[in-house]
Amino acid sequence: MIYCDNGATSWPKPPQMLEQMNYFVNEIGGSPGRSGHTASVEAERVAFGVREALAEMFNIKDPQQIAFTKNITESLNYVIQTQLKPGDHVITSSMEHNSVMRPLRMLESKGLELTVVQCDEEGFLDPEKVKAAIKENTKMIIVNHASNVIGTIQDVEAVGKVAHEAGVLFTLDAAQSAGLIPVDVEKMHIDFLCVTGHKGLLGPTGTGAVYVNPAIKVEPFMLGGTGSNSEFEEQPEVMPDVWESGTMNIIGVAGLAGSLQFLKEVGIPNIHKREVMLTQRFIDGIKDIPGVKIYGPLDAMKKTAVTSINIEGAVCSEVGKVLDQGFGIMTRTGLHCSPAAHKTIGSFPQGTVRFGFSYFTTEEEVDKVIEAVKVIAEAAAE
Amino acid sequence: MIYCDNGATSWPKPPQMLEQMNYFVNEIGGSPGRSGHTASVEAERVAFGVREALAEMFNIKDPQQIAFTKNITESLNYVIQTQLKPGDHVITSSMEHNSVMRPLRMLESKGLELTVVQCDEEGFLDPEKVKAAIKENTKMIIVNHASNVIGTIQDVEAVGKVAHEAGVLFTLDAAQSAGLIPVDVEKMHIDFLCVTGHKGLLGPTGTGAVYVNPAIKVEPFMLGGTGSNSEFEEQPEVMPDVWESGTMNIIGVAGLAGSLQFLKEVGIPNIHKREVMLTQRFIDGIKDIPGVKIYGPLDAMKKTAVTSINIEGAVCSEVGKVLDQGFGIMTRTGLHCSPAAHKTIGSFPQGTVRFGFSYFTTEEEVDKVIEAVKVIAEAAAE
Repeated sequence: MIYCDNGATSWPKPPQMLEQMNYFVNEIGGSPGRSGHTASVEAERVAFGVREALAEMFNIKDPQQIAFTKNITESLNYVIQTQLKPGDHVITSSMEHNSVMRPLRMLESKGLELTVVQCDEEGFLDPEKVKAAIKENTKMIIVNHASNVIGTIQDVEAVGKVAHEAGVLFTLDAAQSAGLIPVDVEKMHIDFLCVTGHKGLLGPTGTGAVYVNPAIKVEPFMLGGTGSNSEFEEQPEVMPDVWESGTMNIIGVAGLAGSLQFLKEVGIPNIHKREVMLTQRFIDGIKDIPGVKIYGPLDAMKKTAVTSINIEGAVCSEVGKVLDQGFGIMTRTGLHCSPAAHKTIGSFPQGTVRFGFSYFTTEEEVDKVIEAVKVIAEAAAE
Repeated sequence: MIYCDNGATSWPKPPQMLEQMNYFVNEIGGSPGRSGHTASVEAERVAFGVREALAEMFNIKDPQQIAFTKNITESLNYVIQTQLKPGDHVITSSMEHNSVMRPLRMLESKGLELTVVQCDEEGFLDPEKVKAAIKENTKMIIVNHASNVIGTIQDVEAVGKVAHEAGVLFTLDAAQSAGLIPVDVEKMHIDFLCVTGHKGLLGPTGTGAVYVNPAIKVEPFMLGGTGSNSEFEEQPEVMPDVWESGTMNIIGVAGLAGSLQFLKEVGIPNIHKREVMLTQRFIDGIKDIPGVKIYGPLDAMKKTAVTSINIEGAVCSEVGKVLDQGFGIMTRTGLHCSPAAHKTIGSFPQGTVRFGFSYFTTEEEVDKVIEAVKVIAEAAAE
């Protein structure tokens, strides 16, 4: 079995993840911020440690400006649904995931003004085009750091600079970059950083986070018990409590602590280096196979380890099925919740077959995948 | 160490929980509903198995009417924030948690009409008073099944009957009852059932669920990728997809599968019986100690295993600290995110010391807790 669906969720996980989850359940067990007893205080310490580790990774000064969420979709909804009002103008790109497009389209139907800047066929966004789209009422620019369909890495530092020079908020969807390539909220001028725990951060499902620039006033979205200001029936408005209603997934957060420890030990530059090597090996291995079309950049330095292809004469869902059942290779086929991105790269509505490698993928596995693509392409050509 | 904070989160967990989580991470690993490959399909099977187990437990006909959430606060916010509009009238009780009161108060500030029916000093809600509060524009009645402060169990079957006879929606907050006493959506006339995974269901944090009566049209709240209708930038409006945006906490859901298996083997009636025995033993052991005030019913059949007390001459946070550091007994002190409930029982703003037992609590532990209360009460009286 060769797992190539790391764009959806990373697998395997570093052993530290389960170790920390098991330790938490067996030895700690409390709910953070809810009680004053030993177990609860210890749970709070675990949660704060993860806030600190994320702050260190993303160059965030105050760890309390990071709220835990269940996934990046929750993070993005908090930002989009609380910060944007009817009459505001928002700029995004044509390479976004539905976790950005669906909330924006919903708000558009209620009076939000939306500009979708067209990317080129390799998925690249031109920061100058973003700059040209800014208007009097532009409130926010929101883009992803790397495409979930073809891996294209955007020059988000330039986009962030454009935003801040115009006094516009900048939100980064780092679903496909956090843990894989450097993300720096200062250098990239990021006001809202949205991440998920279970992809490049190699943590468990049910974990995500959202960072907010401390200069920005935050409004509640989901309201409930926060373990703070319990005497009031109004939601507290300070981070992280304002966006952390109800019992947090502390078992998941404990697991994320283990994963972040692993990432720190290996180092993100080393992870990136390895993924570039694996991805370039894959691209070079398939790019000359007759009938194989690769979408996006062919230079692995310009993308993450996610690569989309199609094979002439074969439907992508069928290719995925043969890869799975004939070769034990797991990919994700179709539209990857990103119809706009597929329209941009020219693969809508049929979709693509997406391969996503991770630090744990081996060169031998990549070679087997190349061989399988070759066999399927030859069969399709007959 | 004696853990008496099961009202916040249950501990220990049945061994099946971690077994299933470890198995999922090590042997399955895929994201449900996202891809067509073996791991993803297997993950989908795990998720559907939990929907089926919850459906069986709560007498729900169609498991697809259950959406997974991160906690009950999310479940309640989906229901409250999507179903209720300005001008609607809502009836709730004076014993509710802030996960109900905070969203309702926020909507009240935007034009929702809210009636809070006063409960008696033991926390009981009179269904006749609920009936009398119904008006022309009443849209929903929302109450908890059991108090998180004093354990009082409401006659929710009668409240549900009142609701349905008047053509009003009935929402049940089963945070403190699911897994501990029977919950039956048909018998209790429940339109929206909100539960959490990490309390009485003995599952991991980061899991919760919301059931919706199939006759009710559901609106999106958090929007994003659902792995379905990927070609559209609009949220699908069918359950469970409409309320399951982004990657679900499938590792947590796998753990919940193990916990539900344990609950099925033991049987909820047996769990209830044991908790009644432990709670009655505790109440009988402390009720005659001079200076000890017990809030709520003294008959354990009328309540869950959560009991609140105060000790004359001692501040509750101090009592909690002494219990923890002097006796290794973990409780939760203060207002338990439920200011209205404390006002109802007469313990606002000082709060109470809350003891919460579980199926795993032993009689010896209860006796040690009684002894500790006795020692602290005697010291406070001096």
